[in-house]
Amino acid sequence: MVDDPRSPDAPSSTGKPAGPVHRDIPAGDNRERLICRDCGFIHYRNPVVVVGAVVTWNESGVGGAERILLCRRAIEPQMGLWTLPAGYLELEETTEAGTLREAWEEARARIAIDRLLAVYNVPRLSQVQTIYRAHLLSPDISPGEESLEVGLFAWQEIPWDEIAFPTVRWALHQHRSVIGQDDFAPFTNPDGDSADYF
Amino acid sequence: MVDDPRSPDAPSSTGKPAGPVHRDIPAGDNRERLICRDCGFIHYRNPVVVVGAVVTWNESGVGGAERILLCRRAIEPQMGLWTLPAGYLELEETTEAGTLREAWEEARARIAIDRLLAVYNVPRLSQVQTIYRAHLLSPDISPGEESLEVGLFAWQEIPWDEIAFPTVRWALHQHRSVIGQDDFAPFTNPDGDSADYF
Repeated sequence: MVDDPRSPDAPSSTGKPAGPVHRDIPAGDNRERLICRDCGFIHYRNPVVVVGAVVTWNESGVGGAERILLCRRAIEPQMGLWTLPAGYLELEETTEAGTLREAWEEARARIAIDRLLAVYNVPRLSQVQTIYRAHLLSPDISPGEESLEVGLFAWQEIPWDEIAFPTVRWALHQHRSVIGQDDFAPFTNPDGDSADYF
Repeated sequence: MVDDPRSPDAPSSTGKPAGPVHRDIPAGDNRERLICRDCGFIHYRNPVVVVGAVVTWNESGVGGAERILLCRRAIEPQMGLWTLPAGYLELEETTEAGTLREAWEEARARIAIDRLLAVYNVPRLSQVQTIYRAHLLSPDISPGEESLEVGLFAWQEIPWDEIAFPTVRWALHQHRSVIGQDDFAPFTNPDGDSADYF
């Protein structure tokens, strides 16, 4: 699953070999990197950071239940399946700011961050994910460009058979295990799970 | 301070313009990226992840105090100053594995991770730092290639005037504020501090 052009392992946009292709160890380094012999460019292929949040809305009134914001993906990978508002951190952006931006871009949601819920690693995709616990400032949401639809789901309404990524499933369950708690260590991958099965 | 070749803002190794130089918005994207018109390579410049740890050694016996592992940098930036064992996460590496690797590379230290202490953002450098709390499995340490010397410091012995980066100072103080505690939210940048003054 490397049909994401942003992945460090993505093929070129032309389908032909693209970018620096010569392998060498730069001065002061200890690993081979891809280097362009024409211009000297060293392509440090770094892991990418994905930022996102479990975003909740608490209905007021007697019996009001927590609802969770999910977005149905309009883009590959996993188009048509449900995910948390999340995406790649951009340059010169903090993880918190990136999380707010993604919630806006994908669900037109204005949110406030409560705290860090989890840090996941997906080493096969060279991804680090920082997932926050956040809440909606207003229940007004609507699909952004990368979403087919968005919704606020009570726990028993979550479309478990149509979840896009294992990390989304982890975040939802781990979030639920600490509702009402503030002092807990952030979660990590469930034991032995490297999320490499999608 | 961009004398780090790994930084997304680093100049080329030749001093001349290097790498893709044309700006365009790739299909399906919403930001300008650097593209090579010769080969189609899209250079997604992503934030980098720095992994590291506050690593402790507890002396046994009556009055035994906690000591903290610091490394004096043998490389720029901030050569000659003291830092935590930390460095760039590599491809296909988890943040935990990268933390163990950096402790070994910089201090020949074998460590075990206790939990995540902090996630810092240095947006000016497009850096996300995950800093763990860890402990030495043995007090046998020695400088790796990137360290001039390494040491185990009691709190009052820490060379505060020779600390390499503000995030190191934050991590040391925040670590101290939760000694003996396990259930706390990971720390973030101190309020309003973006670490952009070094």
